[in-house]
Amino acid sequence: MPARRITIYDVAEAAGVSKSLVSLVLRGSPGVSDGARLRVQRAMEELGYRRNHAASALAAHRTLTVGLLIDDYTNQWFVDFVHGLEPVLAAEGYRLSVVEAGADRAAAVNGLLSTRPDGVVVAMDVPEDLVAADAPPVVVAGTREHIPDSVDTVANDDRLGARLATEHLVGLGHTRIGHLAAAGGAGAARHASFVASMREAGLDPLVSAPVPVAATEVMGYASARDMLRAHPGITAIFAANDSMAVGALGAAHELGLEVPGRLSVIGYDDTPLARMRLVDLTTIDDKSVAVGEAAGRMLIARMEGSDDPQVHTTVEPTLVVRTTTAHAPEG
Amino acid sequence: MPARRITIYDVAEAAGVSKSLVSLVLRGSPGVSDGARLRVQRAMEELGYRRNHAASALAAHRTLTVGLLIDDYTNQWFVDFVHGLEPVLAAEGYRLSVVEAGADRAAAVNGLLSTRPDGVVVAMDVPEDLVAADAPPVVVAGTREHIPDSVDTVANDDRLGARLATEHLVGLGHTRIGHLAAAGGAGAARHASFVASMREAGLDPLVSAPVPVAATEVMGYASARDMLRAHPGITAIFAANDSMAVGALGAAHELGLEVPGRLSVIGYDDTPLARMRLVDLTTIDDKSVAVGEAAGRMLIARMEGSDDPQVHTTVEPTLVVRTTTAHAPEG
Repeated sequence: MPARRITIYDVAEAAGVSKSLVSLVLRGSPGVSDGARLRVQRAMEELGYRRNHAASALAAHRTLTVGLLIDDYTNQWFVDFVHGLEPVLAAEGYRLSVVEAGADRAAAVNGLLSTRPDGVVVAMDVPEDLVAADAPPVVVAGTREHIPDSVDTVANDDRLGARLATEHLVGLGHTRIGHLAAAGGAGAARHASFVASMREAGLDPLVSAPVPVAATEVMGYASARDMLRAHPGITAIFAANDSMAVGALGAAHELGLEVPGRLSVIGYDDTPLARMRLVDLTTIDDKSVAVGEAAGRMLIARMEGSDDPQVHTTVEPTLVVRTTTAHAPEG
Repeated sequence: MPARRITIYDVAEAAGVSKSLVSLVLRGSPGVSDGARLRVQRAMEELGYRRNHAASALAAHRTLTVGLLIDDYTNQWFVDFVHGLEPVLAAEGYRLSVVEAGADRAAAVNGLLSTRPDGVVVAMDVPEDLVAADAPPVVVAGTREHIPDSVDTVANDDRLGARLATEHLVGLGHTRIGHLAAAGGAGAARHASFVASMREAGLDPLVSAPVPVAATEVMGYASARDMLRAHPGITAIFAANDSMAVGALGAAHELGLEVPGRLSVIGYDDTPLARMRLVDLTTIDDKSVAVGEAAGRMLIARMEGSDDPQVHTTVEPTLVVRTTTAHAPEG
């Protein structure tokens, strides 16, 4: 195990001064007495403090906060994830703040970094600006595109989950199954695994055009409506996430297709939305509480200075059968 | 209009030193050169800087962040509210971080304050610790209990909204109407106004025991199920919020009561949940975007040093008729 990184806190303690003063010395600021400057410099040498711009800036502005960057508050995937992440961070004295990226991702990232979090959890596709040289440690949660080399990752196994969803529908006798696809890393993995699982079962995969923006209820509604109109023989839909699945339920209702008698619908994520009595959605539990806990542990290790090799963890999803899927109608 | 409060930024600029150095001088830290200390002290005198522990601590740790404290991420009331609040703050350079209070409110408040936000928006009943002498400015959003004297408030008019909901149902010919009540400031106001509006219409108000915890879908389901079993003649339900209304829709579905043919359901808040096609809930629009915008403007004024008298703003809610309410069934 590598030695803990020496921080300006250690230097301040050894020199008997405040960390603000160490910070001023590091920046070469005027106004520091010669005696204090000397004590700080001596402590740095004795401790083997490596003068590193990023580390010193980080330590100087240590906030004991962790920023969580998400796509969209209406996608309740993040709720369970936070309920896993927050207690792990809190146990080590870190507080979590959530920032929604919204349309202007660059502004959101800049804003988040300006609050000087000690670490960042990214629960969306990773914005490029976030892994600059002086950015705090980053853990990426969920399956994402373009993962930078410098970050740890933890996600449920989206390929396995999509396979479980597809095999559940195939096992119920469905042969005409549509997938409501979403863009992004998780969306692409679920899509690819659906196609592969259908082909293995000797079935033709039907896939909607992946929605290019956030995979919302509105997008799921539109996507399902278009698919059900173009392919009225479909008896089952696998949606890229629960929000889209609830949109599909809305489209089915509008088109007079009884669920699950005439149409089965399965989602992904097992969000609070899926668990509502009115929805009661069959879905894939992506273990977002466990993913949140793992993300918290990984980030804490980095914030405490670990420079172990990057870690990539995968959690196994499970099928949750509720009331929106049933045997294929007689055909 | 009062003069802008002099901050340590002003002192630092006038003295030609960094704000960290001013902060060290204010704290009486050792290690500051005599020359620098003298320049800072002179600048303070010239600017009329009032040495105030809270103000100097606040200014020293100015983070340009605003903390938003909410009850529960699953209550999507906060989503529209954030979408009003965030752009107003961003335009002035402030970033928003959201903290969920959860079960341990004291810990959440302490954690939030430890991140040293420049201001706090409270969108839940106000925790006592939050208005201590050295706390940052606070704006309370939504109708809340025990509003401290020192805070500005903005809310929709819950009494008017509950009246609109009740009168909508009465206007559709319903006479046996139940209210699913919630605790807390907004819950109490909606409850009281329902009772008053029913009595004015010459009708007996039926009210469930107010749910003492977060007004969730689960609580709405349980509350509606109990009420519909105990009072099978009810033809309409007014739920304290949309989450509870969706729970009521689930209970109605389970009991085989067609909505809106046999049972009308109206919610409150017009959350993203209410707008989902599957739900399509008649509700009261509490104008949470406008409330968020107003909260942002009020907080910015305080963070910039306004010591005007406290402001209490009310926004008018409106009725949004969707598909869960209809004329009372023939009786």
